Amino acid sequence: MLAAIRPSVYRAAMNSPSNIRHALSVTRSADFAAWYQEVIAEADMAEESGVRGCMVIKPWGYGIWERIQKLMDARIKAAGVENCYFPLFIPLSYFAKEAEHVDGFAKEMAVVTHHRLIADGKGGLIPDPEAKLEEPLIVRPTSETVIGQAMARWIQSWRDLPLLTNQWANVVRWEMRTRMFLRTSEFLWQEGHTAHADKADAMTETLRALEMYRAHAEDDLAMPVFAGEKPENERFPGAVATYSIEAMMQDGKALQAGTSHYLGTAFAEAAGIKYQDREGQQTLCHTTSWGVSTRLIGGVIMTHGDDDGLRVPPAIAPHQIVILPMLREDDGDEALLAYCEDLRKALAAQSALGDPLRVLLDKRAGKAMQKRWAWVKKGVPLILEIGGRDAAGGQVSVLRRDRLYRNDGKVNFIAQGRDEFVSQAAAELEDIQRSLHAEALARRDAQIERGVTDWAGIEQFFAADHKYPGWVELVWSKPTGAALEAVVAKLKTLKLTLRNVPLGGALVSGTCPFTGQPAVERIYVARAY
Amino acid sequence: MLAAIRPSVYRAAMNSPSNIRHALSVTRSADFAAWYQEVIAEADMAEESGVRGCMVIKPWGYGIWERIQKLMDARIKAAGVENCYFPLFIPLSYFAKEAEHVDGFAKEMAVVTHHRLIADGKGGLIPDPEAKLEEPLIVRPTSETVIGQAMARWIQSWRDLPLLTNQWANVVRWEMRTRMFLRTSEFLWQEGHTAHADKADAMTETLRALEMYRAHAEDDLAMPVFAGEKPENERFPGAVATYSIEAMMQDGKALQAGTSHYLGTAFAEAAGIKYQDREGQQTLCHTTSWGVSTRLIGGVIMTHGDDDGLRVPPAIAPHQIVILPMLREDDGDEALLAYCEDLRKALAAQSALGDPLRVLLDKRAGKAMQKRWAWVKKGVPLILEIGGRDAAGGQVSVLRRDRLYRNDGKVNFIAQGRDEFVSQAAAELEDIQRSLHAEALARRDAQIERGVTDWAGIEQFFAADHKYPGWVELVWSKPTGAALEAVVAKLKTLKLTLRNVPLGGALVSGTCPFTGQPAVERIYVARAY
Repeated sequence: MLAAIRPSVYRAAMNSPSNIRHALSVTRSADFAAWYQEVIAEADMAEESGVRGCMVIKPWGYGIWERIQKLMDARIKAAGVENCYFPLFIPLSYFAKEAEHVDGFAKEMAVVTHHRLIADGKGGLIPDPEAKLEEPLIVRPTSETVIGQAMARWIQSWRDLPLLTNQWANVVRWEMRTRMFLRTSEFLWQEGHTAHADKADAMTETLRALEMYRAHAEDDLAMPVFAGEKPENERFPGAVATYSIEAMMQDGKALQAGTSHYLGTAFAEAAGIKYQDREGQQTLCHTTSWGVSTRLIGGVIMTHGDDDGLRVPPAIAPHQIVILPMLREDDGDEALLAYCEDLRKALAAQSALGDPLRVLLDKRAGKAMQKRWAWVKKGVPLILEIGGRDAAGGQVSVLRRDRLYRNDGKVNFIAQGRDEFVSQAAAELEDIQRSLHAEALARRDAQIERGVTDWAGIEQFFAADHKYPGWVELVWSKPTGAALEAVVAKLKTLKLTLRNVPLGGALVSGTCPFTGQPAVERIYVARAY
Repeated sequence: MLAAIRPSVYRAAMNSPSNIRHALSVTRSADFAAWYQEVIAEADMAEESGVRGCMVIKPWGYGIWERIQKLMDARIKAAGVENCYFPLFIPLSYFAKEAEHVDGFAKEMAVVTHHRLIADGKGGLIPDPEAKLEEPLIVRPTSETVIGQAMARWIQSWRDLPLLTNQWANVVRWEMRTRMFLRTSEFLWQEGHTAHADKADAMTETLRALEMYRAHAEDDLAMPVFAGEKPENERFPGAVATYSIEAMMQDGKALQAGTSHYLGTAFAEAAGIKYQDREGQQTLCHTTSWGVSTRLIGGVIMTHGDDDGLRVPPAIAPHQIVILPMLREDDGDEALLAYCEDLRKALAAQSALGDPLRVLLDKRAGKAMQKRWAWVKKGVPLILEIGGRDAAGGQVSVLRRDRLYRNDGKVNFIAQGRDEFVSQAAAELEDIQRSLHAEALARRDAQIERGVTDWAGIEQFFAADHKYPGWVELVWSKPTGAALEAVVAKLKTLKLTLRNVPLGGALVSGTCPFTGQPAVERIYVARAY
């Protein structure tokens, strides 16, 4: 039984002082799902495409993805993994092979059956019946099968191992209910696929990839995560072990933000991935796969967004600083623009978080207030407004996106000497990166209940009147098979799922609230995306 | 009549001294097509995937594409163009709209008709008849239509113009005869799509993109090209004007390596891309599109490859310098590796061609000679072999891939002081970049015949006994319509095509060899990929 349900620090933080009129029409506390859609629209990140389940990723959304790619790709390359590109299409027969040994085989996939269009004689077009493919092609939902076939060709001896490959690609999984960035029929991702001589080496790689994802989430996205092993029922079909990073969104739900799988030898067996070992024996490889996707962007929105729109961590912001000259369409504009351009150059010569500063001088026509709020909603870390007086006095007026309002509800612009700002800009961005992480971490930790010891406690914690309840950290007996299925079914009645078993936890004691047996490990229970 | 057919400087260069035994089994002069395939296989760039018309791009090929992407993307961003991502699938109806106003509408496309697989009851899988799509989806062959629809949503007033977008994506065009990198059913490319207030602005953008491609080809790929306008019959269907860069391969054939189209208002009309001008009038936009693809890699192979494999220009080489320690599996290896690692670090601290040097220390097990020749075939610009004696004496042994053999036929390693080499490495790489370009330029210019004035001259130049004839530069009267079709048909009898009309040429005089009328411009005639 739960001793006491703590009041949510986070729910308090969600309620802003009443004297502020926020930039968005929906607040997080009022309707989180509607707020999420509004952030995406108002920050101009993506939109529905007119093609079922597919989105158009607009420049601000895609710019964030490009930053994520750059930082992740550097981590992937640093581990000695080499990028390749494999075909979009996978012959149907490859899946038939896989379907045999995989129970949870996912069948919702886009199927190409024809290779030509012809006129239908009524002004329209139809697939040409003469151009029906002998064997249908599947648009890749993941590339395990086709990469497995390639590995079987590429690996002959122990000298070829480990084989470490990755690809950046689009994949398609036909989804009935889609939500931008979180679940779309087409999405962008990277998929790492590796082959190893033995289990130990494959497990090392599986956990290396997991740690890479943890570090990327925490350091690049400022998004706290738990890295751990998924319970048996949540494993990738056919995997021996599946690991994930799990992040808590501001509505208390969990987001699985990346996965890493140790696949044992089953996939190697299906594809014939063998090597001659040092003794001359033909031996099956042990394989792994791991991936993150554009879903991470959904995680960034729901971790850092507020009631004024997105807040982008500086490490992944397409522009870290936007300079807004207060143009008046008079003779003074020229000197003002010269001052701003000089400021831009001085800032662009600095580096923060391992890269030169990304600074935009926004000279577009338009009302200054509209431009300011457009950048606030996009979540640019630092906005500089420069008027003629600032230029004349060697000043800048600085707005930190993560400290948008003063206590009196006014927008928190701070006047500063130009040179002083330039010299501190990199440190300021690094401070914003740290602050966003610290804020998210404090919120997450305040939302994890560790005092639950029985089913009644779980029910109480997730009771309906707790709109955004957070997670429960339990100790459990790690049931398997039918016993695990019973737990999963019971949790499902409260729309709950088992998230993961965090790595590196201390020894546990106590009794499993599901089985009544001695607990062996910690596990997180939550509602999830 | 042609005064005299010049002996081909290039054909002479293709014939190496007989005392050299080259790394490839087929020479360019013996069988260019077979040589091309062998380079790709031996440099380990790509291979057939088992999926019809689709290739697997392996790390060395993909690494070159990553360099091309990085350099091109910087040029695209510098022009203020923003990257987006649009859906892979395009509803069939979008093409029906386009098919109406485009005569040369290409119909060979992959058609998705189902979204689910089910078991067929015989151990196999089939598309689920219950999951047939109401409207088939086309795998994008290009994104004009879907981006046009987006532009129609995004553009309201003159303030929204110009709208400059680009995407990096995979596209599919069902090809009957494929050749790796040059023509594959799936390929990778960038497609720029822009909308403008008027023709002048759109034409400026069309030519900016063309110049960007010219500069990329010449400066990054060291591949000389002619930038010019395609004749009417070679225009992109629906375009008002199509421009291209055309490169000459070592077999004398032309490769269209990039295109830029001014689309007028026809595509804007089809998609409804309109804006309110300063006077409040609804006005159609003028649009452009431009693209380059993985085909560029085919161009690099056929421009720079030789009978020992690929030669990669340093600007796009995944590794610019490879250090090969001559390991002996004895006590001396440790000191040797330390020396090599120190050398690697010193080199990686240098910059050339705008980026830090990309240096690999290849410590893999394996025979030194095999490793050397593997890197020669991959075309790494500089190979360093370091033995124990070099390490002890502070020396390096340097092989420039573009100066592979000495006059006596021996491999051209040059001993050099370690510090001297480090201090000159960047300059050496820049010299290789220039040298490859100069060599390609000299060969191309020697292979262009400018003395042809009549049809007999054309026939003579392209006579069957000239295996790799090169191009003819003509003056012509720029016929249109049926007169142009007659020219195209006549050229086709010799397997010839009109390439482009180079921009910025001097005024011409003379008589058109096809029509007998006064010539108005220069044009290139060649066999082509």
